[in-house]
Amino acid sequence: MRRLDELTLADVAVRDGLKWTQVGPGVIPAWVADMDFPPPEAVREAVARRVATDLGYPGWLDDATVGPLAEAFSERMETRYGFQADPTLVRAFTDLNQVLQIILHLLTEPGDGVLVHTPTYNAFLDTLRVMNRPPVPMKLTPNGETWTFEQPADVAGAKVLLLVNPHNPTGHCFTRAELQGLAELAERHDLIVIADEIHADLAYSPGAHVSFGSLLPDRTITLTSASKAFNMGGVHCAVAHLGHPAVKAALDAQPPHLYGAAGVLGVDATVAAWRHGDAWLAEVLTILDHNRKLIAERIPADVRYQIPAATYLGWLDFGIPDAAGRLESEAGVRLNPGPLFGAPDGFARLNFGTSPPILEEILTRIGTAMPRISADLS
Amino acid sequence: MRRLDELTLADVAVRDGLKWTQVGPGVIPAWVADMDFPPPEAVREAVARRVATDLGYPGWLDDATVGPLAEAFSERMETRYGFQADPTLVRAFTDLNQVLQIILHLLTEPGDGVLVHTPTYNAFLDTLRVMNRPPVPMKLTPNGETWTFEQPADVAGAKVLLLVNPHNPTGHCFTRAELQGLAELAERHDLIVIADEIHADLAYSPGAHVSFGSLLPDRTITLTSASKAFNMGGVHCAVAHLGHPAVKAALDAQPPHLYGAAGVLGVDATVAAWRHGDAWLAEVLTILDHNRKLIAERIPADVRYQIPAATYLGWLDFGIPDAAGRLESEAGVRLNPGPLFGAPDGFARLNFGTSPPILEEILTRIGTAMPRISADLS
Repeated sequence: MRRLDELTLADVAVRDGLKWTQVGPGVIPAWVADMDFPPPEAVREAVARRVATDLGYPGWLDDATVGPLAEAFSERMETRYGFQADPTLVRAFTDLNQVLQIILHLLTEPGDGVLVHTPTYNAFLDTLRVMNRPPVPMKLTPNGETWTFEQPADVAGAKVLLLVNPHNPTGHCFTRAELQGLAELAERHDLIVIADEIHADLAYSPGAHVSFGSLLPDRTITLTSASKAFNMGGVHCAVAHLGHPAVKAALDAQPPHLYGAAGVLGVDATVAAWRHGDAWLAEVLTILDHNRKLIAERIPADVRYQIPAATYLGWLDFGIPDAAGRLESEAGVRLNPGPLFGAPDGFARLNFGTSPPILEEILTRIGTAMPRISADLS
Repeated sequence: MRRLDELTLADVAVRDGLKWTQVGPGVIPAWVADMDFPPPEAVREAVARRVATDLGYPGWLDDATVGPLAEAFSERMETRYGFQADPTLVRAFTDLNQVLQIILHLLTEPGDGVLVHTPTYNAFLDTLRVMNRPPVPMKLTPNGETWTFEQPADVAGAKVLLLVNPHNPTGHCFTRAELQGLAELAERHDLIVIADEIHADLAYSPGAHVSFGSLLPDRTITLTSASKAFNMGGVHCAVAHLGHPAVKAALDAQPPHLYGAAGVLGVDATVAAWRHGDAWLAEVLTILDHNRKLIAERIPADVRYQIPAATYLGWLDFGIPDAAGRLESEAGVRLNPGPLFGAPDGFARLNFGTSPPILEEILTRIGTAMPRISADLS
């Protein structure tokens, strides 16, 4: 098998998911947040072992915490982030957006606001719109080599703080001081904090992810999954740590199987990734670290870009109308358009979770097309 | 690999799920409804292929019907059962009990009755108890070589008919005439019909499964999964066909991800089983057909048993108090006790989804222990 840092377009032609099949011929996809790497060997082995032994009801079937999942999650949170998770507060769901919808459904009413950094993860914005929980934005401003988010004095009646940390789409890792400010805000306004930490394992050293649950355990619902760091977004196995007692009580009051049950393949894949995938993760992070800097070197000078502190997502201000649309038609690369994330259409999100040769090709195409696009616009 | 009909106790020692790990040393498990056979090669190949190609977001991610699942389900229902399912009415869930809880939660109130054949599947009875939807029983009586269920004239205010067909634990395949009577009852009393048809593929010829949706499409929520027939109960991928418009409307009114999302491994395993698992299924049905008759030959004469028309579950009246408990301690075999299914404790459910040699050992143990148990009791 080819080294991950040498994958070519021909190598990734095997990929048949949303990212690669929804683009036209010749277009390189750098949109939806999947990487182009095959998952860790440990994940493949765990799934193969499960299929070869027993696909029946697992020993943890009647355990609400899904025993091995709760243990692997809690150990990982403590070891890597110093967050002393309580395994008895762990519940499994299919994905983070499901948990967001459940919490908003059970503990808020239509019209209740949700405090959220803007721009933010498009699927969460979709949820707020569909459920009529108006976003109360905390706005982003570029600040030298990093980002600063507005720290609101008031929360405009919001009941929930939806924290995406590390942040999507900017890749910002909130500092302890920033999080401390948010924790005080949450205390002052009696907020439920939903902390999406799905990108935590993708923080680049020497920066570090700070888990919000370690600051404010009794208000925080910590959400994560192995899906981003270990590139298995279709597996649909996610963890919620129910630190906030009202959320736990509301969930416990529902019929026990209302929100579904974890499957053995997803659980085994997740546990294998968390327990035995870190060598693979280190290899991938080395590639991504190279890539995030490569963008800074190669992107045209009039495109604004801050090297992200985490994630494989670059947040770019191209300064042209309908940037993503133009780049797809003119450069043959598909990025996610800024408006999906609540930003102007000069912005776009570039997924650099691929090999350096493929990213080189993406950047070459952008670099070649941008002068032509700008000339056409002027 | 050993032939399925020759599996020994040593061969199945690899199995590490609930069935085999929750029994004491030396006890043979014949309880929880998993078989002892490895799943079809097609399932193993499909899962291996998925892991080797792309574990990211699938192409059908935003398709509520989960495209390939809806297609495989609909084709199978039409080909095998003459039920013209509408693929656009298909939704995916993790398991059938989840769907039952969702429908009761959205469309009934605590105290509303649920019409159900008794005895019935224990997890469904648990749901009715936990959710305070009192069962309105339709009672079973043995009738020569088959079973007759009471056909009620009244439904005592029930809003839902919960039909388990083929029936668990008796293995009864409801006849077209029986189902026609239930259909008239459902029309007369404006019932929502929830039809659990998870054992449909395990009906023995020349008998035949009749799909309730083919009789009363607009009142029926058809539920199924590949999990029983293809022995993958831990995979947690189930299908609901929303024939009843009020149920579809109630579900459509919920936040779109509230009840979770199907995972690629479960979907691919299910589609592979349905499309490419029928040779394996035929082999398994031959074994099970032998087994269901073997029980009749070998069970002590004072134990009442009707050869089931479907399923790998035998429903036995041992005529002694705490039959399952005594058989576990005296015979070293674990059956499911009758009271779990709402029956007296002289009944027990015997899972014969195993190889003939292992079933022979189970039956030898029961045959040896029963005279001793009876003598102790007299």
